[in-house]
Amino acid sequence: MKPSLYTILSPALLNLYDVSNSVVVIIDILRATSTIATAMENGAKSIIPVDSVAECIRIGKQIDAITAGERDGKVAEGLQHGNSPFEYPESFIKGRTLVLTTTNGTKLLHMALDKGATDIITGAFSNLDVICDYLLKQKKPVVLACAAWKDKVNMEDTLFAGAVIQRIREHVTINCDASHLALTLYEAAKDNMFEFMKSRNASHYQRLSSFGLERDIRFCLEPNTVRALPVYENGKLVNKSLAS
Amino acid sequence: MKPSLYTILSPALLNLYDVSNSVVVIIDILRATSTIATAMENGAKSIIPVDSVAECIRIGKQIDAITAGERDGKVAEGLQHGNSPFEYPESFIKGRTLVLTTTNGTKLLHMALDKGATDIITGAFSNLDVICDYLLKQKKPVVLACAAWKDKVNMEDTLFAGAVIQRIREHVTINCDASHLALTLYEAAKDNMFEFMKSRNASHYQRLSSFGLERDIRFCLEPNTVRALPVYENGKLVNKSLAS
Repeated sequence: MKPSLYTILSPALLNLYDVSNSVVVIIDILRATSTIATAMENGAKSIIPVDSVAECIRIGKQIDAITAGERDGKVAEGLQHGNSPFEYPESFIKGRTLVLTTTNGTKLLHMALDKGATDIITGAFSNLDVICDYLLKQKKPVVLACAAWKDKVNMEDTLFAGAVIQRIREHVTINCDASHLALTLYEAAKDNMFEFMKSRNASHYQRLSSFGLERDIRFCLEPNTVRALPVYENGKLVNKSLAS
Repeated sequence: MKPSLYTILSPALLNLYDVSNSVVVIIDILRATSTIATAMENGAKSIIPVDSVAECIRIGKQIDAITAGERDGKVAEGLQHGNSPFEYPESFIKGRTLVLTTTNGTKLLHMALDKGATDIITGAFSNLDVICDYLLKQKKPVVLACAAWKDKVNMEDTLFAGAVIQRIREHVTINCDASHLALTLYEAAKDNMFEFMKSRNASHYQRLSSFGLERDIRFCLEPNTVRALPVYENGKLVNKSLAS
């Protein structure tokens, strides 16, 4: 019997699914989980995802860490850094701890914790193959949890769910229409996801490109730029790919 | 300025959208809105959608109407009839009132009412062109509201949203990723939606075919079998296509 796979297109649908026995993949392509993968690859000691700006500032002070995050696509007031993968080169992040809060992704991670999830990773195109390898190795049920945008279904997180499904579908049982939606979307878009997002006027494409962040979008849609595997353990994301 | 179009893939996401100034299309392809279209075409005087079995029985007695509905895909206990379009031929339904309650569709209609919607119609492949004509004539914002299955996104309602979008997209403004998902799904499936549903093992395909209802599924995916236009007015759905 192959393990099940479900796709949750919005955090507002999380409570319909049992996440307690599954590997939960938190997906926030633009840009939290892409930035997490990149910062980790570049040597971040750990990344602490928190769900409020106040908490981010508090913990940042407490442990003398970098505080970063965004609200509505911009650096949140009171934080030092934003949510772009380009802000975290090795020269800056290596050996340091990052406390991160974002509009959707870090919130969803905390929701999954509240729902009893014990095996949480974050996934992005940047570390797509690493994520798929991990899922195949775990042989556990999989929940692909899209952070979406303020609970509204979005294109890029759904695309990533589809990309994972395309790669591991022979090894899982899919009784989940949302997963088939994601796969169909990915198959239509995979040859040029950037152009697909642009031509469909994807909401997040509009939002970020209006801030001059096309370069971020292109980077975040690029598969397999890193080998980092962010696994949530004891309140932080740590890189388990080093350990393997 | 073209009116906006949004697609709501699950009733759990309805509260994220303003429905008060829009035409809201309630979509429950398997089978509530397909049955509504067919029963109306066959001469139902009106159809009263109610959100509980108890209410269905109460109103049915009060006005001496046919009570019908399902829970979990079967005729609900205490009701006379089920939710199959084949149960409502002209010889049975003509001139009569039907009180209907279903797991998802009639509930969603009541949620939309509670949210202030004043212009509600029900749509199905059975009356696809009629729905699109109505939407184009109204020149108002459009909300395509999928009934889904117990809040889980489903394939057939999403397909119908995609079919509507494909037909009217030049006349509306779409800033809604869910709408692009629906359109992409429809474009992948449109040449043979039944086979698409079957090969993807769509959840509702499984559920209904396990009850021997493949014939219902085929019927409900067939476009433009009727010209009925069910519009919600004063607590009931009435056929406005007769009035035009």
